[in-house]
Amino acid sequence: MKVLTTIADFRRAHATLGSASLGFVPTMGFLHDGHLEMIGRARAENDGVAVSIFVNPLQFAPTDDLEAYPRDFERDRSLLEQAGCDLLFHPDVVEIYPDGADLDVTVVPNRIASILEGASRPVHFTGVATVVAKLFNIVQAERAYFGQKDGQQVAVIKRMVRDLDIPVEIVVVPTIREDDGLAMSSRNSYLNAEQRAAAPVVFRALSSASDLFAAGGRHADSLRETMRGVLEAEPLANVDYVSIADNETLEEIIGIIDRDAMASLAVQIGPARLIDNLVLAAHRQPGL
Amino acid sequence: MKVLTTIADFRRAHATLGSASLGFVPTMGFLHDGHLEMIGRARAENDGVAVSIFVNPLQFAPTDDLEAYPRDFERDRSLLEQAGCDLLFHPDVVEIYPDGADLDVTVVPNRIASILEGASRPVHFTGVATVVAKLFNIVQAERAYFGQKDGQQVAVIKRMVRDLDIPVEIVVVPTIREDDGLAMSSRNSYLNAEQRAAAPVVFRALSSASDLFAAGGRHADSLRETMRGVLEAEPLANVDYVSIADNETLEEIIGIIDRDAMASLAVQIGPARLIDNLVLAAHRQPGL
Repeated sequence: MKVLTTIADFRRAHATLGSASLGFVPTMGFLHDGHLEMIGRARAENDGVAVSIFVNPLQFAPTDDLEAYPRDFERDRSLLEQAGCDLLFHPDVVEIYPDGADLDVTVVPNRIASILEGASRPVHFTGVATVVAKLFNIVQAERAYFGQKDGQQVAVIKRMVRDLDIPVEIVVVPTIREDDGLAMSSRNSYLNAEQRAAAPVVFRALSSASDLFAAGGRHADSLRETMRGVLEAEPLANVDYVSIADNETLEEIIGIIDRDAMASLAVQIGPARLIDNLVLAAHRQPGL
Repeated sequence: MKVLTTIADFRRAHATLGSASLGFVPTMGFLHDGHLEMIGRARAENDGVAVSIFVNPLQFAPTDDLEAYPRDFERDRSLLEQAGCDLLFHPDVVEIYPDGADLDVTVVPNRIASILEGASRPVHFTGVATVVAKLFNIVQAERAYFGQKDGQQVAVIKRMVRDLDIPVEIVVVPTIREDDGLAMSSRNSYLNAEQRAAAPVVFRALSSASDLFAAGGRHADSLRETMRGVLEAEPLANVDYVSIADNETLEEIIGIIDRDAMASLAVQIGPARLIDNLVLAAHRQPGL
């Protein structure tokens, strides 16, 4: 595995691969089994694998957890060696933002970035879209891998690729969970034992909606109420939102669920803001 | 020359060129000698040449001249054949904007797009940056050619390429002028005989600033006043702005000109909004 810290070095290293196809997994490091699942998928589907580790300040608001975000580069490097990563891109902030806060051109998603996570974190998806556009331009992979766990991020990236005709295929990898259902996330490390014991309420709430849907429940309000009820029974969970939305636009569904939907939610548990989602596939509707 | 009207067809045609380097000249058609100069340069510096003809609605405000913008595809096609163009990309609006006005992700230049042309045309450079990002992603050229005549467009595109790490080299081609100094522009076709006779005032105004600079004049205000004086002597010319600005950021220079500057202006003459500029190179300063 080659570790590259500059854009120029990365491009040179990529050029030595010739026309081999490259699968790309962008990460903020502190890798877990969810990342390794994506890397395994990238290995299986491409000649080479590139991973980036970059904690992107542009997607954190001043009140967000940029400073606290967990980092362990040596552990990540060793995991990536074992996982068969070929090119590890690990730039510092100055390499990606040489003009600092002076970045003048940004990639701005509009409607899809103003709701759900975007309502709570207004600059978040402009930061995500801009850094992912930059990384796509630097890495120039055939395929890029994103986790379903960050469902709105997936929707924003897919929309960006479509709207800007970016020549990359977006592959969405299913969420990897702990045995008790908690979705793997670097931010789980913020939880103490008591909070960690409460955290599976997130998956239980999503499962309650998914179970109701599987049993034929199609009223979006009922599914939202079910999720909210489960969450509110957990004293440590502070609900930000529960949502039943169109799986592509993420616009909230009013009334009957008549297309692919995403059940999603955000809760604060102690110091951690946890998000998760399950896709409710309309074509799996019983009787159709 | 192959004429391609869809993104998929263009990509297939490009793939048949193999690893040959491609020079790209994006245009809105109604070609003139300024375009042919860029195409000649692209031919000289690359294995193949791609030209796009697309009148981009996203960069026109509702009050702009989108409907009136001159078009003559058959003439353009024949000029491009003669000029040695290999791939002509000529999509319709639906191919580039399949969701119509529903484009959700745009490329937004901020400060540099809010001044000069951007002050008069607020959506203009978001439209330019977005369509050029799309075209870069579709065409995937080694080099792209832009005319110095649209000086702020050059500054915006260079900034976009830098801020988003787009893997393309921007080549700026000098402005081509009529014998009387009028910069070639598709919009010159809007002028009647009387207006056309008045139009060289634009170049005379810029030359007055350039001459003063060449003679050692370094007060930005003096250069601006000189240009304004020349323009105001022409009754048909309605001045929008005159500017002496930093050549990279286009921020107006206050006081002494101590770096590369751009003298630029916009005037309305009859139905045509004419823009032009000259670069004042600090390193050509007498005595240095």
